[in-house]
Parts: sequence; structure tokens; C-alpha cells
Amino acid sequence: MALIVQKYGGSSVANAESVKRVARRIVDTKRAGNQVVVVVSAMGDTTDELLDLAEQVSPEPPTRELDMLLTAGERISMSLVAMAIADLGEDGRSYTGSQAGLITDAAHGSARIIDVTPGRIREALDAGAIPIVAGFQGVAHDTKDVTTLGRGGSDTTAVALAAALQASVCEIYTDVDGVFSADPRVVSAARKVPFITYEEMLELAAVGAKVLHLRCVEYARRFDLPIHVRSSFSSHEGTFVMSPAAIAAAIAEGRAMEQPIISGVAADVNDAKITVVGVPDRPGQAAAIFGALADAGVNIDMIVQNVSAAATGRTDVTFTCPAGSAAKALKSLQGKHESIEFQELLVDDQIAKVSLVGAGMRSHPGVSATFFAALAEAGINVEMISTSEIRISVVTRVDDASTAVVALHTAFGLDADGQAVVYGGTGR
Amino acid sequence: MALIVQKYGGSSVANAESVKRVARRIVDTKRAGNQVVVVVSAMGDTTDELLDLAEQVSPEPPTRELDMLLTAGERISMSLVAMAIADLGEDGRSYTGSQAGLITDAAHGSARIIDVTPGRIREALDAGAIPIVAGFQGVAHDTKDVTTLGRGGSDTTAVALAAALQASVCEIYTDVDGVFSADPRVVSAARKVPFITYEEMLELAAVGAKVLHLRCVEYARRFDLPIHVRSSFSSHEGTFVMSPAAIAAAIAEGRAMEQPIISGVAADVNDAKITVVGVPDRPGQAAAIFGALADAGVNIDMIVQNVSAAATGRTDVTFTCPAGSAAKALKSLQGKHESIEFQELLVDDQIAKVSLVGAGMRSHPGVSATFFAALAEAGINVEMISTSEIRISVVTRVDDASTAVVALHTAFGLDADGQAVVYGGTGR
Repeated sequence: MALIVQKYGGSSVANAESVKRVARRIVDTKRAGNQVVVVVSAMGDTTDELLDLAEQVSPEPPTRELDMLLTAGERISMSLVAMAIADLGEDGRSYTGSQAGLITDAAHGSARIIDVTPGRIREALDAGAIPIVAGFQGVAHDTKDVTTLGRGGSDTTAVALAAALQASVCEIYTDVDGVFSADPRVVSAARKVPFITYEEMLELAAVGAKVLHLRCVEYARRFDLPIHVRSSFSSHEGTFVMSPAAIAAAIAEGRAMEQPIISGVAADVNDAKITVVGVPDRPGQAAAIFGALADAGVNIDMIVQNVSAAATGRTDVTFTCPAGSAAKALKSLQGKHESIEFQELLVDDQIAKVSLVGAGMRSHPGVSATFFAALAEAGINVEMISTSEIRISVVTRVDDASTAVVALHTAFGLDADGQAVVYGGTGR
Repeated sequence: MALIVQKYGGSSVANAESVKRVARRIVDTKRAGNQVVVVVSAMGDTTDELLDLAEQVSPEPPTRELDMLLTAGERISMSLVAMAIADLGEDGRSYTGSQAGLITDAAHGSARIIDVTPGRIREALDAGAIPIVAGFQGVAHDTKDVTTLGRGGSDTTAVALAAALQASVCEIYTDVDGVFSADPRVVSAARKVPFITYEEMLELAAVGAKVLHLRCVEYARRFDLPIHVRSSFSSHEGTFVMSPAAIAAAIAEGRAMEQPIISGVAADVNDAKITVVGVPDRPGQAAAIFGALADAGVNIDMIVQNVSAAATGRTDVTFTCPAGSAAKALKSLQGKHESIEFQELLVDDQIAKVSLVGAGMRSHPGVSATFFAALAEAGINVEMISTSEIRISVVTRVDDASTAVVALHTAFGLDADGQAVVYGGTGR
């Protein structure tokens, strides 16, 4: 008997009808001969409504109390799902994060899971029941206070619970059919891909694909737990996120076809580009800049430093960071004006980061050449470049992002009517 | 330093503005040199909205899940109150019933408190914080499941917590100024009474006054804990519910005046009258009737049995029960038709129970005479009579209830412009 963990997001349990539909699917899975553990997010807009209430009461609410408030959301959805399951004749039992043994640190609002002790969940399974666990929340091991894992944390709850219970798969239900080779709203020829490695999924999540959250994929990779991303509105298979070995086994079994070089193309328009102009070209200046940014808690993505002009002995340092952190970044650099001795700070949020991801890049030369040729042919100017072993990213004007994604999707034969056997992914 | 437990009902925390107003009052109480523990109900209509959601999902939701769902309500209000307190510069910390040590039995929906272990609340007080505790909820000592105490349970939470913490007083904030000698909507001359005994309050709660719940008053009496019922919309003192000894002490201190004979008049229109017609007049028939009703879980209030007619050897048995239980009562009696051998069942929900309550009744003869004379003079027909040591109740037509209450209020000198020094109480 297989143990399956199913996670349903807020859009899958948005109202009473959706809750009943989800319950039907859960009960069907159990009656097909599986053990099922369910993880749910808060219904639809509940979290936003609670945040709005908090804002009306206090401009800067304590994070401990914000966590207490927000966890009411899953409490509502999970008990309703349990009721709907009971109505179908099965024994649904809801559990808070604390009851399910999701032990975290005390970093309210972005707590990390440090242990999972699902004793009560096992007991419920042994009794033939279907446990429904609140996603996104846990309990701090030292203070015993209620914590949340941050937005998207329900995916992490599901994967962590699946790992602790040694489930055979963690199914993440969402409102899209799986992972696509590009955003279907941008590239009409985008196709759903049946298999993708953790590593590729991590790169895609990092460059703006929003189907799965980084932490959840990292967690699954660490425990080699297969994730199945699929739609709660259809019964089609979605995308399996697995290790290269598991994909190879699937190919050997005839469940998957040969893997392509490139998995997908994604664009992220949420970054800003900051240039520190006229930094004296001497040792320690970069350390001073990025030290100040680290102290301010700004996450840096791409970094470029120009060759210094011989005449002035000064150079420009450019980096990207989330647009929401740009103000914080500027403030922290202004505070170091005297020690860094830069001449000016420039900020530009009209940029996009366009990325190509594929594990096959490692062994296939020529990918970069095709990449830049496609962009040049489409008349797109590249402002910054950054690469990893399995990813190439460039910064372009924000208005060029869609053109760039479409051009790359075609150039790498990813279009649904193309010849290559492809898979890949980008956000909804 | 006095320890004060303050309980705020749903109408006192109905929206962000109310939450801030309540926080102001809490902080003022602390800054006046007290330790404060707060108990809150769910905001305004939250509980009804959650019940409505449950109904949409399942016609008969499991009570365990209903409790999980409903407890989301206080989770929201208590974290918002804690945030508003933090905004005023004090350390508000919210606690669920489970975290606050409210240990109950596992009777979901109407759990009884079996122990209170407020270790975390004491720690918070010792740290100078203001603990905000979710009313109405607890945790079952054996299953560790979340339970609720039933509607109005927040009052019981507050009193139980106050008793466990040996608080000097439990303040119950509501939307009325205190306990009145009659419902001010019915009797314009009704007056707020400053002091009332537990016993009188219990009788009043039992006959329809809705200011305090029976269980909460019982709990306070057991621990001799003073309750102060007052409005969260004004700073006036309300009504103190205390032991006769505590009231005597207040009189000796000049805080209270001599106590009157009658405390108040109340009417309850939520009962139904059921008559079992033509029951054979032989031993065991009453036991069969009330045994059947007890098995069905119907709470019986008043009972009258007619003298049997010599010609038929049959009698009629009449009783009252909550109108909501009438259908259940009829069904359980129909099921015993053969053994009880009654001829007919009659049900009448157009009745009211009108009651006069006063501890002074014990030592003052003539109260009954005045009572019935007043009703007769007002032309009101009495259908059933029941008395306790400190209460007289009669059943009248529902349309006569207001006339009866006004007539009794005047006859016993309770009117605000009357001569007698009076106090008493009835619901809003």
C-alpha cells in the first residue's frame, strides 16, 4: 500500500464547492488502495484578508502575533476539508502544524523546519483515517510559540511531512497543469513537460518560475522525494520533479522519453539593477559594498564590475536585487559613502532577467552561441550576463522580456510543434 | 498589585476600531498598577460565518472538526488585540486555550473544564507582559484534540482562569451596562443593580436573563470569585456578582446599600409546552415518560400532572422544554406509545415563562400573594406554576409576557422611580 502526500493550494480550496471536489479526489485516492495524508493552504484570499485586518490594527504588528493570526487560515480550510471527507464516509481528521509535529526555529514569519515528528499522523493512518494537516505552520521548539514558514510554506510542509513519513510521492495540486517550457501566457507554443530534475527546477524557481518554491524543492532533493506537480481541476498527470537517477529509471521503464538539453525559458521582472558609479579601483571596495548590503539583509543576484578607466582609477559596480529591496540597498550604501568613496548611485527597475535552464547544457557545447545569436537576431540588447553550470541568465530591458523568451523558446526547439523532444518549466 | 482578568465579548472586538479601543482600556488598567489577563471571544459574527461555511460543506460535520473550525475565530481576535496592545507600547502575547492550560474533557462542542494549568500565563505576567487568552476553547486531556466549551464559553474561560490565577476580580465586558431589574426594552423603569448574589444570578440566568451564562456563574460561586459585569463602551461601574458575605462586607464598607427582597423579573419565550393527554393513572407512567425524554437528551423544566378523572382513570402530564427540543421530545414519546398508552400529544410554543427572583423571598412571607394578585389585576391567565426557594415562575401566553413583567416590576417596587431600594437583573 503506497503512502501519498497530497498538498492543495488556496485556489484548490477557495470555497465550499472546491472543498467538496478536493475531498472527492482525496477519498478516491484512498479507495484506490493508498494511504493518504493531506496538506492544505488557507482558502483563496483568506491570508490577504487577515493581513489587511492586521494592518488596520497596527502599522507594525509583532511577528509572533502575525503568525498566530495567519495560522487561523489553514485552521479553517483543514477542518472544512475534514468535514467534507467525513461526509463521503471516510474518517478525516485535521491537525495543526504543532499537532502534526512540524517543529521549527523561532524565526516568526519565515521559520525553518528543524524536525518533523509525525506521531499523531502515523496513529491516524494506522487507524485507517485520513489526516489533514495545516500547511505553512509549525511550532517553535524552544518557545512553543506558533510559527509560519513564510509564503508558499505549505509546499514545504507537504514535502517535509512526505519525507518524514517516507511517502512514495508528494503530489502538489495547483491551478496549472504542471511545469511548462515557458509561461504559456507569453509563449503560446509552450508545452507541459513530464519530467524535470530537482536541479533544473531549483534554477527555474530561482529565476522566476512560480510553480514550486525554492525551499520545497531543496527539501525534496535532500530526501530524494519525488514531487508530482499537477492540477486539482483535471485528472491528467502533471510534471514529476525527481532525481536524474529516478528519471533514468523512468526512461528505462518506458515511462519517460529521452531527456532534452534545455528544460525551459523563464523571465523575472521583479528585480532592480543598481550601479555604484566611480568606485576607487583598489582592494576591499567590493567587500565594503557587498558587506554593507549583506548587513542590510539585501539578497544580491547578478554582479558585474567594469574594467576601470586608466585615467580615473575608478570603476563601476553593478548588481541586481529584488526591486522591493532597492530602497534598502540604496540606504545602506549611502550610509557607507565616506568609506566606499563612490561618486553616484543609479537605480533602474525597468529590467528583466531572462534565463535558459537545462541540465544538458553541461555536456553540450554551443548552447551559449545559440543563445546569444537568438537574442541578437531578435534585436535585444544584453545588459548583464550571469551563468551557472545549467543556466544562462541575461538582463534586458523589461519591454524586451517577452520577445526574448519567445525567441529563445523557438531557437532551442522547445515549441510544441518543433522537432526536439523537450521538457522544461516556467511559472504560470 | 491586583490581578484582574478582563473578558471582552464579540461585540466589544467587532472590528479594528473596537479592537483598538479595547486595547486602550487594557493598557490603562495595567498602567493603573494592575496585572491584567485578557480573555477574548471571536469578533462579531465570525462564529456564525464559520458555522455557515461548515453547513455549506457538510450537513452534519463531525464535532471534532467543528471545534477545530470555530476556534479559528478567537485566534483572529486575540492576535489582533495583542497587536493593538503592542502598538500602545505594552507587551501583548496571545495564547490559545491549549497554551493557556485550559484542560477539558473530550465532549466536543460542550466540553467541561477539568483543570486549568496556566504556567505560560504566569510566566508572561512575571515578565511584565499582558497575556491575551482565547476564550471558549481548550484541549482534551486524553486525546489532545482541540475542544470548545459551547456558546458563551468565553465567560467560563475567564472565570476559570481568574480562579486558577487567584485574581481579585473577573471583569466581564459586554454591550450593556450590567444586570438590570428587568429587560430595559420591556420595562422602561428598569434599573441597573450594583450588587447581586451568585444564587440570584443563577436563577436569573436559568429563567432567560442572558447577561451571564449559567456555567460561568456556577464556576465563580464554587471559587467565591467576584464577577464585575460592565460595558466596554463606558467607564461606569456595572454589576458585581458576589457571595452574600462579600455583599455584606461591601455594605459594611459603605460600598453597597441594604439588599432588597426582590432582585429582578425576567421572561423567557424560548420554551414549548407539551401535554401528554390521557395517560393511565398507575405507578410508573411518569417514570416511563421522563425516562424516554432523558434518553433523548431533552432538558425538562416545569412539570404539572392533573388530578386524574375518576371516570376514565386517566390523567394529563404537562411539561416545558426548550422549543428547539420539542420535535425530539415528541419523537421520543411517540416511540413509547405502546408502553405509555397515552391518547394524544399536544405541543404549544406560544408560551412564555415569567419569573420573579430574589434571595429575600426566603424570609419574607406574602411574596406569592403579591405575585399572583399583580398578575390577576393585569388580567393574565396562569397556565403552570413552579417555585424554588428564591424564585417563582409561571407559564403564560407569549403575548402576555411583557404585560406580566411590567406588572410584577411595579408591584414589587422595582421601578426606578419607586420607593424600595432595589436591585435585580434580567437579560438585554
